[in-house]
Amino acid sequence: MNATIAARVNILFASETENAEDWIPLLERSLPRDRILLRPEAPIDVALVATPPPGTLENLRGVKLIQSLWMGVEKLLADPALPKGVPLARLVDPGMVAAMSETVLAHVLDWHRQHYAYRAQQHERRWHRHRQYLAADRTVGLLGLGELGSDAARKLLALGFNVAGWSRRPKAIEGVKCSTDLRSVASMSDALVCLLPLTSQTKDVLNASVLGKIKKGGCVINLARGGHLVDGELIAALDSGHLAHAYLDVFEPEPLPADNALWRHPKVTLTPHAAALTDARTAVPRIVENIERLRSGRPLLNVVDVERGY
Amino acid sequence: MNATIAARVNILFASETENAEDWIPLLERSLPRDRILLRPEAPIDVALVATPPPGTLENLRGVKLIQSLWMGVEKLLADPALPKGVPLARLVDPGMVAAMSETVLAHVLDWHRQHYAYRAQQHERRWHRHRQYLAADRTVGLLGLGELGSDAARKLLALGFNVAGWSRRPKAIEGVKCSTDLRSVASMSDALVCLLPLTSQTKDVLNASVLGKIKKGGCVINLARGGHLVDGELIAALDSGHLAHAYLDVFEPEPLPADNALWRHPKVTLTPHAAALTDARTAVPRIVENIERLRSGRPLLNVVDVERGY
Repeated sequence: MNATIAARVNILFASETENAEDWIPLLERSLPRDRILLRPEAPIDVALVATPPPGTLENLRGVKLIQSLWMGVEKLLADPALPKGVPLARLVDPGMVAAMSETVLAHVLDWHRQHYAYRAQQHERRWHRHRQYLAADRTVGLLGLGELGSDAARKLLALGFNVAGWSRRPKAIEGVKCSTDLRSVASMSDALVCLLPLTSQTKDVLNASVLGKIKKGGCVINLARGGHLVDGELIAALDSGHLAHAYLDVFEPEPLPADNALWRHPKVTLTPHAAALTDARTAVPRIVENIERLRSGRPLLNVVDVERGY
Repeated sequence: MNATIAARVNILFASETENAEDWIPLLERSLPRDRILLRPEAPIDVALVATPPPGTLENLRGVKLIQSLWMGVEKLLADPALPKGVPLARLVDPGMVAAMSETVLAHVLDWHRQHYAYRAQQHERRWHRHRQYLAADRTVGLLGLGELGSDAARKLLALGFNVAGWSRRPKAIEGVKCSTDLRSVASMSDALVCLLPLTSQTKDVLNASVLGKIKKGGCVINLARGGHLVDGELIAALDSGHLAHAYLDVFEPEPLPADNALWRHPKVTLTPHAAALTDARTAVPRIVENIERLRSGRPLLNVVDVERGY
């Protein structure tokens, strides 16, 4: 690879969703030798992509690296125009990882401190205090123990919560009850948080069987992808009184259509896929690291395993 | 003191608000030599009080210790029946301290992640994503740097927030910009959190002048006492658009009357004085520690300075 990369790299920025003005000045400052292009007006070495404009992927056959600007790459992998054989890297942005943990804590604490219930009471101007639980009385189950799950686990443990975690492959994280048995993790959990990549194996993972194993009065927090959740089975688990609340950030499709029942469900708190956004300030150093690795022929970081799907 | 205390201590439990069934079994298990009484049917050595029934304080002139079951003691101090010269101890319950930090984090994160705004959008079924900030972009100001403030500071710092803190006497907490100048702390803060004891010096501390110094788009979180806040001046700061949101747990009087405008203000989130409750499981060991100190004549913990007011 070393021999094929010129000292000066042409970098295409191709995104219909990310703001070029947030990225280009930081990229130019960090990569002064290279050229950052908004259109493929020269042979491209590296493409930075997130929802690339139609026709972009078709023209990336000769590039050395496609670097996603997001952590989730299931849409790129599903696109038949994605060139085979070109390394595709996920973005592991420390700012985005921290943002995701903030959102996990915000929702876990909203449920744990019963703020969802107090908001409903405020609407009725009703002053009524509920029994308080200690963090040590609660178990938070994390689905996914990669970069996101392990950071959230550490921060939940620091607040005194018990933490259980599910991953496809066996993992060991200090203080976390790690398991590869999804049902056993769900049945230990008061709050179940989905942070998984969307693959054929994780689609519909939040279904009636798993939701029914969460402890009564618990909650579900889906911050991963809409495809992880079977909406109708969640609504049934909320309406039966088994689950107290759901916090949903992701939907299928997005934006969530205005006539979808989730918008108005009294036990659902919705956010518009805003749980954790890439921040160019923390992401650019990671992208620069991969470009410097490419330039010097060292192994690239966070290359996607196409078979595995992430 | 040693000589005046028998090996067996008579302990009166006197509270109209705390559930005796939560406390008595734990107290009896931890103090097997002593007698726990619900009525003063024998000479009392120690009184455990939180909103004691009328007439209780008048009969405590001879006791060796009045141990509050709460951290805040301003109501006991204001009661003319509180016997002079009897040591009054505040309760520093580690479970209550942890609960308060959970509530601080829940509200700071609700504001920081703009969940209050997303809830309003959900009501309108509007899908619109706001700009994301990193924790490092925000400063949380803490009013009060005692047991509560220092625990909250440590947990906010661990999430990457900048933390400033105000206290009456100079303090030094690693990583916290400590100051005795209230206006300077307010003007550094995006979110201002009140954790102060209520004294003649801290009454009305959250007034137009201080609220106006908080950064535009910021929030106020009052978890201390209703008397700290000038309600009308907060409403003006919210209505002018200077502050984005307020999180209020405490009011004057409580319960907050149903006709109070705060119940229905769209920029106010209310909870019914539930930010942090004493938990008998974590509190009893601290009460036992003070009783054993009394029994063996050692200095008592957390004795209130009546002049200072806490």
